[in-house]
Amino acid sequence: MPAATAHLIPLPVEETAPTTRERIVEVAARSFREIGYQKTTVADIARTLKMSPANVYRFFDSKKAINEAVVERVTGEIEGMIAAIADTPKLDAPERLARVITALHTDCRRRWEAHPRVHEMVEAAMSESWSVCQAHVDRIEAVFRRMIEDGVREGSLTVADPKAAAACLHAAIVRYCHPLLVSRQHGTALPPLPTMIAFLLGALGVSGR
Amino acid sequence: MPAATAHLIPLPVEETAPTTRERIVEVAARSFREIGYQKTTVADIARTLKMSPANVYRFFDSKKAINEAVVERVTGEIEGMIAAIADTPKLDAPERLARVITALHTDCRRRWEAHPRVHEMVEAAMSESWSVCQAHVDRIEAVFRRMIEDGVREGSLTVADPKAAAACLHAAIVRYCHPLLVSRQHGTALPPLPTMIAFLLGALGVSGR
Repeated sequence: MPAATAHLIPLPVEETAPTTRERIVEVAARSFREIGYQKTTVADIARTLKMSPANVYRFFDSKKAINEAVVERVTGEIEGMIAAIADTPKLDAPERLARVITALHTDCRRRWEAHPRVHEMVEAAMSESWSVCQAHVDRIEAVFRRMIEDGVREGSLTVADPKAAAACLHAAIVRYCHPLLVSRQHGTALPPLPTMIAFLLGALGVSGR
Repeated sequence: MPAATAHLIPLPVEETAPTTRERIVEVAARSFREIGYQKTTVADIARTLKMSPANVYRFFDSKKAINEAVVERVTGEIEGMIAAIADTPKLDAPERLARVITALHTDCRRRWEAHPRVHEMVEAAMSESWSVCQAHVDRIEAVFRRMIEDGVREGSLTVADPKAAAACLHAAIVRYCHPLLVSRQHGTALPPLPTMIAFLLGALGVSGR
C-alpha cells in the first residue's frame, strides 16, 4: 500500500495494541482509584472494556503488571510537570526549587485526597513493585540535583555534594508529598509549606528568603 | 487501719484498678502487635486475661479507648527516652539533636519492623484518635525546640524562630521515624541518616560537621 494513502484506511481501533493497552490502563486507573486495588479484578477491567480477560492478559500478565503501568503513567505526569518548572527561564535555583516542591505538594493533594482508596494502589506498588517507585524517586532527585547544581554555579546555593543534598531534600519533604501521608495530615501539626521550604533552602545555603 | 501496718496486708491484685488497667493495656498491646488491631476484639482481650468483657469495659469504653492507652504508653516511652538524651550534660546542642534523631530512628525500626501488623494500630490511632498522635508530636517538638534554644544561647546554632524550626526538623525526619514509613524503606533510596542529620543541621545554621 502506498504510504501516501495508508492514512485513509481506518485501523480497527480495538485491535491496535497501544490503544488497547492505554484503554486497559485508563480503566484500571479509574477502578483502582474508585473501587480500590484490592477489590478490582482483571475480570472487572475486561468486563468494563467489553473484552475477554484473555485479551487483557495479552497485554499484561498480572494485575500487578497493570498497576505498574498505572503507576508509571501517574509518575510520568508528575515528572513531566516538575521538569517543566525546573526549566523555567529567568528564575534562580532557590525559586525554582520552591516552585517544584510546592507543585509536588499541590499535585499530591489534588490527586490523592479525593480518593482514599488510591492508598491500596500505592501500597501495592510499594510492596510488590518497588523498582517502579524507586525509578520515580531517582528521576525526581535528578531534577532536584540539576537545580541545585545550577544554584551552585550561579552562586545562589552553597552545597558540597549536590547529589546527596538532592536526596536529603527529597526525603525531607515526604510529609508534604507522599501519597500515604498527605491525605492524613489533618492540617494541625505540620508547618506551612513556605516555612518548610525556607527551612530546607537554609540547608542548601540560602538564608533570609 | 494505722498507716504503718497497712502495707502488711496484701491487696487483692486482680481487683486493683491501676494494675488491671495496666494488664489490659499490656495484653492489648501484644495482641495488636501480633494479631493486628483489626482482628483483636475486646472479647479476645478479656479471654486472655480470664475476665469478662464487661470487666474490661469497666476500664475502657471501647477498643478505640484501649488503643489510645496503648499508643500513650508507647509514645510515653519514646518521649522519656529522648528527654533523657536531650538532657545529656556536656554535649552541645547539635550533638544532642543528632543523638535524639538517631535514637528516634533506631527505636522506630526496632519497635515496628519486626511486627508488620502494628501498622493497623498506628493507622487506627491516626484516623480515630488524632489528638493522641498530635500530643505526641507536640511533646517531641517541645524537646527539639528546647535543644534548638540551647544551641542559639550557646552560639552553636543560628535560628530565628526555634518553635518553627523544631516543627520543620520534625517534619523533615518523618521518612526515618514514622512507623508507617520506616518498615517500607527498602534501604535503597534513602540517604544514610548521618548524611540527613548533617543536611538538617545545616538548616539550623551549623556547617561542616
